[in-house]
Amino acid sequence: MEHRIEKDTMGEVQVPASAYYGAQTQRSIDNFRIAQDINRMPKEIIRAFAYLKKAAALTNLDAGVLPKEKADLIGKVCDEILEGKLDNEFPLVVWQTGSGTQSNMNVNEVVAYRAHVLNGGQLTDKDKVIHPNDDVNKSQSSNDTFPTAMHIAAYKMLVETTIPGIKKLRDTLAKKAAAFMHVVKIGRTHFMDATPLTVGQELSGYVSQLDHGLRAINNTLAHLSELALGGTAVGTGINTPKGYAENVAKHIAALTGLPFATAENKFEALAAHDAIVETHGALKTVAVSLMKIANDIRMLSSGPRSGIGELHIPDNEPGSSIMPGKVNPTQCEALTMIAAQVMGNDVAISVGGANGHFELNVFKPVMIYNFLHSARLIGDGCVSFNDKCAEGLEPITANIKKHVDNSLMLVTALNTHIGYYKAAEIAQKAHKEGTTLKEMAVKLGYVTPEEFDAWVDPSKMVGEIK
Amino acid sequence: MEHRIEKDTMGEVQVPASAYYGAQTQRSIDNFRIAQDINRMPKEIIRAFAYLKKAAALTNLDAGVLPKEKADLIGKVCDEILEGKLDNEFPLVVWQTGSGTQSNMNVNEVVAYRAHVLNGGQLTDKDKVIHPNDDVNKSQSSNDTFPTAMHIAAYKMLVETTIPGIKKLRDTLAKKAAAFMHVVKIGRTHFMDATPLTVGQELSGYVSQLDHGLRAINNTLAHLSELALGGTAVGTGINTPKGYAENVAKHIAALTGLPFATAENKFEALAAHDAIVETHGALKTVAVSLMKIANDIRMLSSGPRSGIGELHIPDNEPGSSIMPGKVNPTQCEALTMIAAQVMGNDVAISVGGANGHFELNVFKPVMIYNFLHSARLIGDGCVSFNDKCAEGLEPITANIKKHVDNSLMLVTALNTHIGYYKAAEIAQKAHKEGTTLKEMAVKLGYVTPEEFDAWVDPSKMVGEIK
Amino acid sequence: MEHRIEKDTMGEVQVPASAYYGAQTQRSIDNFRIAQDINRMPKEIIRAFAYLKKAAALTNLDAGVLPKEKADLIGKVCDEILEGKLDNEFPLVVWQTGSGTQSNMNVNEVVAYRAHVLNGGQLTDKDKVIHPNDDVNKSQSSNDTFPTAMHIAAYKMLVETTIPGIKKLRDTLAKKAAAFMHVVKIGRTHFMDATPLTVGQELSGYVSQLDHGLRAINNTLAHLSELALGGTAVGTGINTPKGYAENVAKHIAALTGLPFATAENKFEALAAHDAIVETHGALKTVAVSLMKIANDIRMLSSGPRSGIGELHIPDNEPGSSIMPGKVNPTQCEALTMIAAQVMGNDVAISVGGANGHFELNVFKPVMIYNFLHSARLIGDGCVSFNDKCAEGLEPITANIKKHVDNSLMLVTALNTHIGYYKAAEIAQKAHKEGTTLKEMAVKLGYVTPEEFDAWVDPSKMVGEIK
Amino acid sequence: MEHRIEKDTMGEVQVPASAYYGAQTQRSIDNFRIAQDINRMPKEIIRAFAYLKKAAALTNLDAGVLPKEKADLIGKVCDEILEGKLDNEFPLVVWQTGSGTQSNMNVNEVVAYRAHVLNGGQLTDKDKVIHPNDDVNKSQSSNDTFPTAMHIAAYKMLVETTIPGIKKLRDTLAKKAAAFMHVVKIGRTHFMDATPLTVGQELSGYVSQLDHGLRAINNTLAHLSELALGGTAVGTGINTPKGYAENVAKHIAALTGLPFATAENKFEALAAHDAIVETHGALKTVAVSLMKIANDIRMLSSGPRSGIGELHIPDNEPGSSIMPGKVNPTQCEALTMIAAQVMGNDVAISVGGANGHFELNVFKPVMIYNFLHSARLIGDGCVSFNDKCAEGLEPITANIKKHVDNSLMLVTALNTHIGYYKAAEIAQKAHKEGTTLKEMAVKLGYVTPEEFDAWVDPSKMVGEIK
Repeated sequence: MEHRIEKDTMGEVQVPASAYYGAQTQRSIDNFRIAQDINRMPKEIIRAFAYLKKAAALTNLDAGVLPKEKADLIGKVCDEILEGKLDNEFPLVVWQTGSGTQSNMNVNEVVAYRAHVLNGGQLTDKDKVIHPNDDVNKSQSSNDTFPTAMHIAAYKMLVETTIPGIKKLRDTLAKKAAAFMHVVKIGRTHFMDATPLTVGQELSGYVSQLDHGLRAINNTLAHLSELALGGTAVGTGINTPKGYAENVAKHIAALTGLPFATAENKFEALAAHDAIVETHGALKTVAVSLMKIANDIRMLSSGPRSGIGELHIPDNEPGSSIMPGKVNPTQCEALTMIAAQVMGNDVAISVGGANGHFELNVFKPVMIYNFLHSARLIGDGCVSFNDKCAEGLEPITANIKKHVDNSLMLVTALNTHIGYYKAAEIAQKAHKEGTTLKEMAVKLGYVTPEEFDAWVDPSKMVGEIK
Repeated sequence: MEHRIEKDTMGEVQVPASAYYGAQTQRSIDNFRIAQDINRMPKEIIRAFAYLKKAAALTNLDAGVLPKEKADLIGKVCDEILEGKLDNEFPLVVWQTGSGTQSNMNVNEVVAYRAHVLNGGQLTDKDKVIHPNDDVNKSQSSNDTFPTAMHIAAYKMLVETTIPGIKKLRDTLAKKAAAFMHVVKIGRTHFMDATPLTVGQELSGYVSQLDHGLRAINNTLAHLSELALGGTAVGTGINTPKGYAENVAKHIAALTGLPFATAENKFEALAAHDAIVETHGALKTVAVSLMKIANDIRMLSSGPRSGIGELHIPDNEPGSSIMPGKVNPTQCEALTMIAAQVMGNDVAISVGGANGHFELNVFKPVMIYNFLHSARLIGDGCVSFNDKCAEGLEPITANIKKHVDNSLMLVTALNTHIGYYKAAEIAQKAHKEGTTLKEMAVKLGYVTPEEFDAWVDPSKMVGEIK
Repeated sequence: MEHRIEKDTMGEVQVPASAYYGAQTQRSIDNFRIAQDINRMPKEIIRAFAYLKKAAALTNLDAGVLPKEKADLIGKVCDEILEGKLDNEFPLVVWQTGSGTQSNMNVNEVVAYRAHVLNGGQLTDKDKVIHPNDDVNKSQSSNDTFPTAMHIAAYKMLVETTIPGIKKLRDTLAKKAAAFMHVVKIGRTHFMDATPLTVGQELSGYVSQLDHGLRAINNTLAHLSELALGGTAVGTGINTPKGYAENVAKHIAALTGLPFATAENKFEALAAHDAIVETHGALKTVAVSLMKIANDIRMLSSGPRSGIGELHIPDNEPGSSIMPGKVNPTQCEALTMIAAQVMGNDVAISVGGANGHFELNVFKPVMIYNFLHSARLIGDGCVSFNDKCAEGLEPITANIKKHVDNSLMLVTALNTHIGYYKAAEIAQKAHKEGTTLKEMAVKLGYVTPEEFDAWVDPSKMVGEIK
Repeated sequence: MEHRIEKDTMGEVQVPASAYYGAQTQRSIDNFRIAQDINRMPKEIIRAFAYLKKAAALTNLDAGVLPKEKADLIGKVCDEILEGKLDNEFPLVVWQTGSGTQSNMNVNEVVAYRAHVLNGGQLTDKDKVIHPNDDVNKSQSSNDTFPTAMHIAAYKMLVETTIPGIKKLRDTLAKKAAAFMHVVKIGRTHFMDATPLTVGQELSGYVSQLDHGLRAINNTLAHLSELALGGTAVGTGINTPKGYAENVAKHIAALTGLPFATAENKFEALAAHDAIVETHGALKTVAVSLMKIANDIRMLSSGPRSGIGELHIPDNEPGSSIMPGKVNPTQCEALTMIAAQVMGNDVAISVGGANGHFELNVFKPVMIYNFLHSARLIGDGCVSFNDKCAEGLEPITANIKKHVDNSLMLVTALNTHIGYYKAAEIAQKAHKEGTTLKEMAVKLGYVTPEEFDAWVDPSKMVGEIK
């Protein structure tokens, strides 16, 4: 590969001749040969930096500390980054400095050098029209830009992918709940037969879980909307013009269309990432909900002949490479694997969040890497599960009816008529002798056949249907 | 020990003669010999059950399904439980049935039998004036009572112990932040010297963390205020009188003085405990904050002669059994151990929350056990840390001044005057040659001594003090 | 309460008049008012200290630095502690100094003062025959005694409770596996019907899991057998006589009957507790196994009429406070809750283990608290599950036979005769039309009835029975 | 894109015209649109499948159930996969069916179709010389191939990347420990000054941690060497020729050069992945060690002027985009972020491992994804840390000497001469009055200046140097 020579405060470095990045990016490539093929800094962070650098340039322009031509050039490159045109220029990995300094410098370098080229210059020119530190990074520090990029990327992923994905699944389940609201089925507690409810009621519980989950996520967004930018090196805002923090947040809000505002305390915003921990706690709550929902659905659809078999799920693919004709609840499996991953990611984030020191948390990349992973997986996973499984859910009414008719737990309806103890006796003896409840209830002389039919009616045992 | 014979639907059981509990409690003692000396069901759950059973009796009375004398007797025993008079009657452990049925029955039995005795009866009477299932448990199921008790106990612990504890520490730190707002010190990022800030600014970051943490907890309380009661066995409300769910929630709200309401979806309320997962996520966020704060304080107080030594913390006890005169940051250690515990408890809760099946989650006891543990530890831990450490925090000004005066990172103030690259050169050469910044800056000819003094003033590098 | 005055290097303290402990214990009670009613330092640690202090006294005697009368007196009190006679003298909690110094001093004080009383003295005597620091703690530091007590307590719990508990369950499952080795049942993969195996084969998988788990625990014992004692304050062994570390380990080995030896590197033994992390990783592996086993058993025993219903489990208690006659898999529930707890404890231990600094890890109490909790729960939980569930496992042959006879996955046996694609066609069409495999296979003309019967024989599809 | 039509048991599917994969791979692409740009099935799994499919073909050839020409063709394609020539043919993601069936079929299809082309055929030929299921997958099931690939990939990663990486770092630290074994420094416990030790002793603790960690990993390899292959669908080995399981394991061992053997119990090997859980527990132990080591090193190298400053670490890159001349412990940061990730991955793996059901664990992909991630990160991270940090570690002797000379904890050496209480008094008063220990000791009259110099000699306080 051909190279050119770039320089930073430590000296000269060989850089690929055509790369828009410079010395500091190259040093990071050389110094952190860790999982470089699989763990690049998430592209969402790079895009977030593009918003941020453009907003900073505009704010510096407003403040009179950056000339218009420079601000325009910076903005142009940021737009190119947002369009995905420069994706290959950001080769750094998650496992770098814990402040994300090197990714900040990667962006600074690419913006500066690409701007120089856009302006008609050559990458090999010694002096460039835009300087990575003095222009692109003006009024900034890695210490406030990286956490700002974290919040931008996290917030955007939530509102663009995670929340819509959950809502889509929630709406489908709500539609199914309404459709099957009067299909009476046997309830199960402790995995054992219990009193009846309807398929719709059961599904409504899942809807309620997701509704609460969406609220839980929304409750955390206020903290996540706070931006560290303007705190610079340690939170004091050294080297920023007056009003910078508030103004740059406004520019970012305008560019992204999201309700960002400057953080109420910059020291917190640099030294801790509790907002990431807090919001991911809500994501983990949703993961826990999804695990429950997907487990239920796979168990309810088990069979086809030796399982519970009360729900039909779509056959999307051949299920087995050895057992012909087998169809498996693969969407449930993908979703529960995602839940496991999110539960793991939560620990990585918490460990990172807890180990910040003094004025800076230096677990920034690992925290946002795990956050974006979870947010993406939940969003994509809900859509996949929705489209390929939930949309096709149907009750298998023959099995459902058989289970209700056989159930011993209908005896519960007798509690208020003959007391818990006699009701228990009926159920136990019917179980032991393999008879129906009615036969045993009458045989024991506790009720007449007419009373039994009047009192034990599954359709009246499911409460008020809302 | 003397015994009497008690009976349940499965037959006879020997019970200690003077115990107020009956057959089902004794079966649980016999069947679950697991850590019985250390893991009793938390007393907060027992107390919560007392509120619940009294409220249920009142609601049943309102609905005309329980006579006033019975409701009164039940209420009296519940009051005794709340006064702590019957603590020894609840010997069951966490590791029992996952629905908490046995603890529900333990309460039912104790209330019924103690009521019988209060009413002038004997424990050995075959027929008792109050029946555990038919009276005390009327219109209820373990499946809706236990989760209701979970929310009552959790909410109460939060508002009585956890939140006040965090607030106390937050207020002390805010007071200290104000007091030391003008003490300029060196900042540290990556554990390395950085630009200055004030001691008060640094502490204000901790205050902001706790403020956000308190908001995070508060945001989750709405979900936690939802009560499952009225759902009975599977969420349908079988065997409850009309209006029961709403009314019993009102009674519980009145008795506890807390804003409880009936759950919007009872199927969710029995089958999942996402509210516990969600709120504990907020508690874990606070734990993460506390780990950061306590770590900082122990590091800043390190020394006395070979550490950082910028903060004085109180000497509460001799620190070492072998090194005479040693004083250690023991409150920081207790608090960070608590943080580790809460991070672990979070996983136990998530695993439990994710593994509910069909109409019932059967990880209820382990979930609430861990929740109450965390809530208690954070509350107590914050008070202890506040009283024995935070209240006594003082800056060690001699060390603070020495560190500021020596720092090379003051060079950052020159960026906007001479550019990042020249400033870097000054710092690096001063470091290498062991000189002051000023000496090197002048020697290199980048600034005059007068310019240096004007531009590099730590007290002007800390931004606007709020 | 009556008090007496005790003194330490910081001054005077009021202590309960009859308490054997002294000033430093009392300071810890006063300084750490954190969950004092529920989180005492585990008694296993106190007992381990008794072994340790006795061994240290004997070693000091051997080395000629402690007179025989003092060594004898110390040994006598240690024996009393081991007999449980002084349990109330150890009121300190887990949430204290992270080195456990205060519990070490608690033991030092109790041993010294009780020895003085045994020797005929009074607690109020100003000078006592034995000094807590200079005699009981001679040649020791909290920094090496507490980790030594951790290893003694952990090792003892494993060999006395955890491993025997797992083995007991393993042996019962092996017995059941042998008993049911020829009961052919339908297999289930993805929760869906699959090819057959025998009940015994299925159970043999659980046995293999526990066998591997026991090996995993055993593999970690070598590290756990290393004792820190002799490292004193920072690992250098300051203030110890020659040969002390090796000799004291020998005395501990002799007193406990366990293969303890001095740690190969004392700096590691004080500054890190990787042995605890490592062994708990093995315990967590067992917890993961137990979750799998208990989940299977509860699902296989689900019903009685609307579940899978292939395994009978004992009816230990009434299952529901509202549904009469219900019996639940409560032992499975307790065991899976334990598994969740152990998975949480693992994180608490890892966070603690990762955050040691320089010469000392100061998360010692939280680490051993969680370790002993897990080790106890697994041991007790396995015994409870064994005695109340596994011992009573029986196949429900009618259901098992019905499931095998109906299964479509027997078609797999045709793969090697007619190919995967044709076999799949048979299964799919039989499923769609609700017929048997044989009917469809013949109808499609792929096999003759005679071929079908010869090729599709469940009892020949379970492989070689070992 | 141009397409061709492929068929499976469910019907026709459009596949990119030039793709070597077929219908089932395409269905998975279409059905699992989850993080497809970032979460492909790890290439190590694909390579492991190549060993496996070649070994299976050879074993089938030995058993006379596959003709030599077919076995040869299959082997050739497997070799191409191992050379990385077909990497683009494996586009499936982790979030698919939990058995990994689709990746198994992806391999089956690619091997079959590529073999057909190698044999002179066309992808559009209706009949191909090799069939994915009947030939490539012969005597196999996804249920036994995927776990076999998991163990092959995991074991290879450990011996090729993880263990060598840890060893490399261990050896460098051992070399440094030897080099600095006589540099006396102040010890620190509780982050506070303690008695002295040498830099080499401190580093020897890290070496011991890694030695124990390596042993911990090695102890788990026996379980990981067990291969599921031969169990086929549910562990019974249906549709395998006699001796298949043992023989195929021998072929895999021969091809990989690693000590694989057939699993002692195939039911365990399919239904549980405790080996993965167990070994990752050991990896997590190493992560905990690395967190400790990297934390220590960054704290010891803190400064340059306001920190501890006892260790020099290499300056690899400019440290700050705003603070000129700053150098940060970036390798420590990358390594501690890795530790956080591994701690999170451990939870994902445990949750997956605990949730297997009946004859199959269906969290296989998420488990191996996290396992390989951790194993890779630890290996790469150790090498990076070694090359860019550990190799350059040097003591900063001026600071080290200053800290020793000032320390108050040298007073510990007086314990055995004047007792703990008097020694404590000296230290406390010296601290309060800011004097040296010697001045205060003499002033208090407890020792003569000569005694002090004789007794308090840091170089004699570090024990025997090994």
